[in-house]
Amino acid sequence: MARILNVIIFFLSVASVAQNRIPELVSPEVNADRTVTFRIYAPSASEVLLECDLLQKGSGPMRLTKNESGVWSVTTVALPSEMYLYNFQVDKVRTLDPNNAFVIRDVGNVFGMFFVPGGKADDYLVRDVPHGSVIHVWYDSPSLKTNRRLTVYTPAGYETSKENYPVLYLQHGAGGDEDAWLQLGRTAQILDNLIASKKAKPMLVVMANGNAGQTAAPGESSAPMKKPVFIQPDMFSGNTEKAYPEVVAFIESRFRVKKDKASRALAGLSMGGMHSLVISANNPELFGYVAVFSSAMLWPKEAPGEVYKDFDRKLEAQKKAGYKLYWIGIGTDDFLFEQSNTFRKKLDAMQFKYVYKETAGGHTWSNWRDYLTEFVPLLFR
Amino acid sequence: MARILNVIIFFLSVASVAQNRIPELVSPEVNADRTVTFRIYAPSASEVLLECDLLQKGSGPMRLTKNESGVWSVTTVALPSEMYLYNFQVDKVRTLDPNNAFVIRDVGNVFGMFFVPGGKADDYLVRDVPHGSVIHVWYDSPSLKTNRRLTVYTPAGYETSKENYPVLYLQHGAGGDEDAWLQLGRTAQILDNLIASKKAKPMLVVMANGNAGQTAAPGESSAPMKKPVFIQPDMFSGNTEKAYPEVVAFIESRFRVKKDKASRALAGLSMGGMHSLVISANNPELFGYVAVFSSAMLWPKEAPGEVYKDFDRKLEAQKKAGYKLYWIGIGTDDFLFEQSNTFRKKLDAMQFKYVYKETAGGHTWSNWRDYLTEFVPLLFR
Repeated sequence: MARILNVIIFFLSVASVAQNRIPELVSPEVNADRTVTFRIYAPSASEVLLECDLLQKGSGPMRLTKNESGVWSVTTVALPSEMYLYNFQVDKVRTLDPNNAFVIRDVGNVFGMFFVPGGKADDYLVRDVPHGSVIHVWYDSPSLKTNRRLTVYTPAGYETSKENYPVLYLQHGAGGDEDAWLQLGRTAQILDNLIASKKAKPMLVVMANGNAGQTAAPGESSAPMKKPVFIQPDMFSGNTEKAYPEVVAFIESRFRVKKDKASRALAGLSMGGMHSLVISANNPELFGYVAVFSSAMLWPKEAPGEVYKDFDRKLEAQKKAGYKLYWIGIGTDDFLFEQSNTFRKKLDAMQFKYVYKETAGGHTWSNWRDYLTEFVPLLFR
Repeated sequence: MARILNVIIFFLSVASVAQNRIPELVSPEVNADRTVTFRIYAPSASEVLLECDLLQKGSGPMRLTKNESGVWSVTTVALPSEMYLYNFQVDKVRTLDPNNAFVIRDVGNVFGMFFVPGGKADDYLVRDVPHGSVIHVWYDSPSLKTNRRLTVYTPAGYETSKENYPVLYLQHGAGGDEDAWLQLGRTAQILDNLIASKKAKPMLVVMANGNAGQTAAPGESSAPMKKPVFIQPDMFSGNTEKAYPEVVAFIESRFRVKKDKASRALAGLSMGGMHSLVISANNPELFGYVAVFSSAMLWPKEAPGEVYKDFDRKLEAQKKAGYKLYWIGIGTDDFLFEQSNTFRKKLDAMQFKYVYKETAGGHTWSNWRDYLTEFVPLLFR
């Protein structure tokens, strides 16, 4: 037993050096009553704030208070079930919670994350249900003259069944990439849970990179590892939309999927909503289901892409070609809310049918996870 | 154009709110001369330190100095090509670099990461070569009575060729999980680069979770999201080793692989080295290639698992059954160096042949990436 103790003591000492002898704290601590306690050891700080978009709602960051041991803490009120992102500000320095090993990147910033279960977050949490596979695979894009990284979710049972499956294509927003829906959107967990509870049909979900100038998420390509930014220079080039049928062709050549319009859905958020709008109108025979979440619904008149030209005529052709469902979801606080209303008036005037979901809230992943959770059960019926 | 400007201005304002109006800094900046500059805005701090194991080498953290704008900075000497993990300490608070979007978790701590290219880090960087796929898939473990998450790398061309491929099984160390070799070990990049340059044969790499009490990496299972720790209570239960043939059986039933001993390799680091040692000796007909990196070579006499019993006899049987290569790599600063020497003396006495690679350095991912890069080209020849 001496030997094992030696090994363990050594491991513990390695662990302790790595932690710089700072006291171990539990943070965040999600309490049974749904309050959450945050703690950080900062003995010489004069101010510690907690920044969390979903908690603040205009009231500004929460203020932590220090105890005699140099540990700052604050406990929230009981919180709605949700996935939360946060960070501290210690004397104006943005600081990730050093006791939280669970972090997530949103565009150029990294946040600590936690879940308050017991409500809608249960849709996003990993539960003891059959799990699909998640695949990062590269495909060739002849029109973009490169190979590109793609994220594919295949449902539990895909590998062993002989069935062909329908496919949902899911596009991220500005500043995102092929990992955004998987990480921030919790797509694999949402699909696992909806399929296990028979609320959704088993389907593949394909998450492409919607930035035509990128081959992969930052850090996953040979491009320099610079801090990711919101606005890509080619945002309105039309190249993503033009090249998109290559994604569909790749998936249909590589995976065991159904290849008819009624078995293909396309959805996206924000910029990716615009992609879904434009791609589906340019390819009226491709997608039986289309959804736009908090979507950009316009592009500059000068946008060079052929895909943006004659757009009303393209919408008419899409209407004529027919579709199973056209779904529009947006929150009343969204900065694109008026844009969405204007676009819907155009659709109304054309008698272009759609289902409209208006929610509270704004341009947030909280809404986008909700819209996905609501849209996916409507598919392939 | 007014419309697009509105959209862009709004996006930029969202981005700016998210960044709390803190000045944008480039950090870390890898300079052309291989020095690296770190910067952080901390106007009211009285001390800012840079912690980086590979930089410090016993000399302690580096000290940043403040300019009149409240920006602290430090520039290193020219650094060896490597993948580096670091964090700041701002007035004793562990702080991730807020300007670095590239972070990585090692056991319970998150670090900023960067690469100094132009040498061995080029083996780990994403390069413009054909890329394999990375798959997260769940398999059933009858003996552990659960399903478990597994990471599989398939080489470029796997999906379209008709060939069967050999397989390298790769085990992580204490505190790790099925993501450790992929993230910290850069397995996919190392394999992509070695295969593209024809230094290695195309092969699958399978990274299982070596903690019998875990079904998946922290945050990827339904277990509570607690800070990951180094020592798992079942570390010497023998359950991981006993259940391991189920991983092989799953891979051989699901993937297009060769199923003979000469087409199977097993390697691991630290605790995973011990797993490789024990699994291969208990299954002398399974693996033609075995490697142990910085390996634990012993277990407590009281360890309950049948897999640890009569071990010398098992090694004799493994020797008799034969193998292509038994590879031992360790650094002279490793805390397991003496243990490794003792074990090698036993092998020598038994005339159990092995290749021995002694390097500088200790129990580090830097060494483990090097060992992988050296071992993989020896496989399946």
